[in-house]
Amino acid sequence: MTSPDLAAHIERGLTDLRDLVKMESVSAQGRSLPETAAAVRALLEAEGFAVREYPGHVAPVLVAEAGPEDAEFTLLIYNHYDVQPEDPLELWDSPPFALTERDGRLYGRGASDDKGEFVSRLAGLRLARERAGGPLPLRVKWLVEGEEEVGSPSLDAFVREHAAELKADGVWWEFGSVTPEGRPVLYAGLKGIVCVELRCRVADSDLHSSNGAVVDNPLWRLASAVASLRDEGGTVLIPGFHDDVRPPSDADLAAVTALSGGGETLRDTYAVTRPLGTPAEYHHRLNLKPVVNVNGFHGGYGGAGSKTVLPAEGMVKLDFRLVPDQDPARVVTLLRAHLDAQGFGDIEIVELETHQFPGRSDLEAPFVKTAVAVAREVYGQEPLLNPSSGGSGPIHPFMAYVGAPVVALGIGNVGGRVHAPNENILRRDFGRGVEYAAALMTALAGQD
Amino acid sequence: MTSPDLAAHIERGLTDLRDLVKMESVSAQGRSLPETAAAVRALLEAEGFAVREYPGHVAPVLVAEAGPEDAEFTLLIYNHYDVQPEDPLELWDSPPFALTERDGRLYGRGASDDKGEFVSRLAGLRLARERAGGPLPLRVKWLVEGEEEVGSPSLDAFVREHAAELKADGVWWEFGSVTPEGRPVLYAGLKGIVCVELRCRVADSDLHSSNGAVVDNPLWRLASAVASLRDEGGTVLIPGFHDDVRPPSDADLAAVTALSGGGETLRDTYAVTRPLGTPAEYHHRLNLKPVVNVNGFHGGYGGAGSKTVLPAEGMVKLDFRLVPDQDPARVVTLLRAHLDAQGFGDIEIVELETHQFPGRSDLEAPFVKTAVAVAREVYGQEPLLNPSSGGSGPIHPFMAYVGAPVVALGIGNVGGRVHAPNENILRRDFGRGVEYAAALMTALAGQD
Repeated sequence: MTSPDLAAHIERGLTDLRDLVKMESVSAQGRSLPETAAAVRALLEAEGFAVREYPGHVAPVLVAEAGPEDAEFTLLIYNHYDVQPEDPLELWDSPPFALTERDGRLYGRGASDDKGEFVSRLAGLRLARERAGGPLPLRVKWLVEGEEEVGSPSLDAFVREHAAELKADGVWWEFGSVTPEGRPVLYAGLKGIVCVELRCRVADSDLHSSNGAVVDNPLWRLASAVASLRDEGGTVLIPGFHDDVRPPSDADLAAVTALSGGGETLRDTYAVTRPLGTPAEYHHRLNLKPVVNVNGFHGGYGGAGSKTVLPAEGMVKLDFRLVPDQDPARVVTLLRAHLDAQGFGDIEIVELETHQFPGRSDLEAPFVKTAVAVAREVYGQEPLLNPSSGGSGPIHPFMAYVGAPVVALGIGNVGGRVHAPNENILRRDFGRGVEYAAALMTALAGQD
Repeated sequence: MTSPDLAAHIERGLTDLRDLVKMESVSAQGRSLPETAAAVRALLEAEGFAVREYPGHVAPVLVAEAGPEDAEFTLLIYNHYDVQPEDPLELWDSPPFALTERDGRLYGRGASDDKGEFVSRLAGLRLARERAGGPLPLRVKWLVEGEEEVGSPSLDAFVREHAAELKADGVWWEFGSVTPEGRPVLYAGLKGIVCVELRCRVADSDLHSSNGAVVDNPLWRLASAVASLRDEGGTVLIPGFHDDVRPPSDADLAAVTALSGGGETLRDTYAVTRPLGTPAEYHHRLNLKPVVNVNGFHGGYGGAGSKTVLPAEGMVKLDFRLVPDQDPARVVTLLRAHLDAQGFGDIEIVELETHQFPGRSDLEAPFVKTAVAVAREVYGQEPLLNPSSGGSGPIHPFMAYVGAPVVALGIGNVGGRVHAPNENILRRDFGRGVEYAAALMTALAGQD
């Protein structure tokens, strides 16, 4: 049973989401970023937040504050208003920048990652205040950036420089998800990431492929370089890559072991035909294994039929997902040394913006325990607590400079197609997210 | 010194070429093929040829005949009126379908391959007739197809079925080239070819790349499969691939050894930075080594910046250049077995249209010797005789069903950018080609 006040707050949140999804805030392409920042600022100011706007590399950073300065607990919420590119456009069943409801799901770029999270929490704050009959004895700070999908290039320095302004007792991370059965999934850490492009060129013009007997092929060279990066099980083979991996704590290992399921949902939702690892290894790999991904590989002819061409050049895009205490810059150095040692000294490495340290919170911290307990109560099921997400984000500055534990819980779902066509959330999860936000803030205010 | 009649025939030939280059006869895309066939037919009929038009798979096949039926020598000329796709368009310095002269070169798609060859020979025939004061005592047959750039899918069966109609004492192949120093380059054979696409798919939708810890990557799988096909020196590693390779004859080896240069022109013209093999191996490799080429590799994100996506699928385009007596269909069978053995049973092989047997003529055949001798006289330099081109073409049916030796000599140049942007011929080579055609036909008519 949804109480009447909750239903109204959910609808108001969805109206906010509809307005934000319309804004094409693709940070990789520098689209609509100041406009979207202004819309987010207006939403926060309407709830009494004092909002400061700072310049970022490609998009403004917003810092908002509300609530008594002498509150016993300060919650820092981190969200982002930028989104991934919408391509390939032809695979969307409805326009990416128009929130569209079908069969209990709301589709649109950013519906889940991360506009949906943001508005659900704002709706939860409104609900908590209404239920409390006024302001909560809780200080809420909100950091909303617009560069998360390009690796948050401004955030590390920003959080370091604004550490006092951002001081908090706990950080509520931007995402999180709910299983199809309605179990909340929490994360107490994030993998790091570093993105690079590999480029190879053998001539100043494409050649007739008869010359393949006497001129090397840039796509074969890139393919061989890519093949050398990992084994068939997905373990990275770059010498030194694993040297800085911190062994998981006993609590980390216990948490991973307690997680159920082994990729069945992923398999059923996306028709995945080639899982890596066994079902028993699933959560250990997602939480704790560093990996390399080929995000794109392009060169030569890609049209209909054949073209007997020896391409002049080609390029590959990679991301590395890292675990504590791997260092993104050191991984690039190791990659360079590996390519050189493999005979690929001619392959150029171009570092892309995305570059983040990994981080994992202490699972025994009180804020982590409260977040889990409230989730158990609101969702009515035992939460699934992950030491780390398989995904990445700029967790490092919060752990290093704010010094607070970080927890992620949100409104995503395993069929949410985040970063892909038909990104979506369940209406059920949005509503539950509003309720959770209200309950968590109430609990942190000491009023539950 | 160009004699007055030669200059006029060259200009008329270039007018013919200008008209043909305008026609966008891209066979891979089925563009303007019947119209171009009609234009070729009109040019031949204007010179008194009886022309028959037959249906092909994607474009008409033309067979033309002229000259006395009881002539002592019948020359069969093979040309094609289709061209390669013009992309990438932005790398052309003038429109691909407008013959444009700059600094002694004539640029346009098909200027060299193969509209330029065709019109130079037709102009040579006109010149020979004018010099002889009437028809030559030579039977000339002309086969002009429009499917060469997609692997001549109709030609094998066509030549087999029309073997009597095409009977000849020597076959003049569609191409050939001249060195920057003006030495004619002849070929007495062609490599075979087979083109395939490799496809890999792991899901029905792109995934967030955090799933790379638990879902395999189709681009890594394709890269590993491609890497396994050859070694760093360019030798194909597919088991059984070399079993059917016919050892070169002593004459083949002597001819290859007599060829000078080691890729300097290719290097200087195309800024090639990664030659395969040593300069001393250059001609042996081009003539006699079977190879695999990666023509294209496409999957995932290719735009600006990074996109942290695990692509659902990817594809690779390959061609294999074969030597006698390799069989294209058997190569595909061996490729399948190799991929299966390497653990890539999930990678699909799609055969593309391009599929041709290799062929090499006997270098001691009289027609080959005449073609070389006339080249020596017309070009005033020692010809460079290659047992085989590094390129491919439908030579097999001519050798198997017509049973005549095949020689290629033409108007290409090493900077001709055939199959690439800015395809071109030298005005010098076009004129010399007209002269050579006239002299060869005169010699074969027994009138030199």
